[in-house]
Amino acid sequence: MSDSSYVHGYSTTESQRLSDQANTLSHLLHHDSVFRPAGLVLEAGCGTGAQTVIVAPQNPQCHFVSIDVAEDSLVKAEESIKKKQIQNVRFQVADVFDLPFNDESFDHIFICFLLEHLQERTGALASLKRVLKKGGTITVIEGDHGSAYYYPRSSAAQATIQCLIDVQAAMGGDSLIGRQLYPLLITAGFGDISVSPRMVYADASRPEMVDGFTRKTFIAMVEGVREQAINSGLITEADWNKGITDLYRSAGADGTFCYTFFKAVGKKL
Amino acid sequence: MSDSSYVHGYSTTESQRLSDQANTLSHLLHHDSVFRPAGLVLEAGCGTGAQTVIVAPQNPQCHFVSIDVAEDSLVKAEESIKKKQIQNVRFQVADVFDLPFNDESFDHIFICFLLEHLQERTGALASLKRVLKKGGTITVIEGDHGSAYYYPRSSAAQATIQCLIDVQAAMGGDSLIGRQLYPLLITAGFGDISVSPRMVYADASRPEMVDGFTRKTFIAMVEGVREQAINSGLITEADWNKGITDLYRSAGADGTFCYTFFKAVGKKL
Repeated sequence: MSDSSYVHGYSTTESQRLSDQANTLSHLLHHDSVFRPAGLVLEAGCGTGAQTVIVAPQNPQCHFVSIDVAEDSLVKAEESIKKKQIQNVRFQVADVFDLPFNDESFDHIFICFLLEHLQERTGALASLKRVLKKGGTITVIEGDHGSAYYYPRSSAAQATIQCLIDVQAAMGGDSLIGRQLYPLLITAGFGDISVSPRMVYADASRPEMVDGFTRKTFIAMVEGVREQAINSGLITEADWNKGITDLYRSAGADGTFCYTFFKAVGKKL
Repeated sequence: MSDSSYVHGYSTTESQRLSDQANTLSHLLHHDSVFRPAGLVLEAGCGTGAQTVIVAPQNPQCHFVSIDVAEDSLVKAEESIKKKQIQNVRFQVADVFDLPFNDESFDHIFICFLLEHLQERTGALASLKRVLKKGGTITVIEGDHGSAYYYPRSSAAQATIQCLIDVQAAMGGDSLIGRQLYPLLITAGFGDISVSPRMVYADASRPEMVDGFTRKTFIAMVEGVREQAINSGLITEADWNKGITDLYRSAGADGTFCYTFFKAVGKKL
């Protein structure tokens, strides 16, 4: 990940946002993140461990090596698993493009919200494939910011979402990535690929989704690029404020909000 | 439906498209279109019976009254159910805004791909609510053309989809309706509302979805407004052709396509 950049910083607020997101979405994304028992799993780009603390405990017979380039994130990840008394994870500072592991070391690769931040997405997948055993599988989970739509519709709100997409793109990432998982895995040479969309839908009859996802995950993520978007001239402060106000209407009594994550599983043939 | 217009004509090709669509989507949309046995069901806006032939046989203990304003459509619907030896449906020419039924006549209301064509959506729901028994339920299924996204992305392809949305809007309809079902049912006074999205995802590993949905349902539907879009000056012929070529790339070996239908169930309290 040496040549990649992150939209997500790791302030306390951001850490809380990632944790809220993980709780709301854990069942949707991870109820089937179950690997062959006794397997060695490489989690690449674990960050502060928001997914690690969900996936490691539900695979108690596997051992996890969870890597990230950011040492300060791993300190927080380590604290998280100690607090939850999770025993089957070892954290290690490592670069996904220069993995300090032998060829065919792992039974499974697990990556979640990593590719969206990378410029060399196929390169990252090829690097990960090297350390995967033949017959081993890879699980990739990504969102797609182009999958967000809502009611009431608003071009002002859409402009703020476009800022999020543009800021991430300017850093070399691609937040419209969920829809691309199939061709990315094909290009990287994986086989037996199966992609399943995981759609979030929130209306007032599902207050936990409205609060946990629409407000505290998606809108919070958009609000996270406010300074960058305004300072870089992507949008005026007035337009930004109007857009955010409109976005919050989708979390109101007559509002609805939709977003889709994509989960892909492929095999090294 | 007297003051409404249809994007869909009922040429032979269109009839085939509606039938292909119904087959590909029937499980996704209708596996849970199951009503209380011995109930009397009003299907409003049945058209040529594309949904009737799926839903009536899976509710053999219910009786269906399936209505439409278009008599020629009902002739085709009648042929369809005779061919399939379906016995529990009676067709009747009727206007959803002026229903020839007593108050509280039906145990269940079923509408599918109707509201998108109507100008007075809340009025239609209120009219239907009048003939529904207290404690009876309504099922509403609609697509949402703003839920379509795909890979490779293309602004030319998006312009053709926007033509479809604009043509339908010019006729008084609203094809961005799926996301609005919750507020529409609330406004019409229904309670216990539950909305579930039904997402279609197609890539080359699912050839039946690529062919049945991406090509023969969605792109066919876009192509259906070609003349109207070009003749009304919404788009040039050259831009249209480029857009359609690009849309077909989403049905290619490295393409993906996403679309979401919404199914809502509400109750007359």
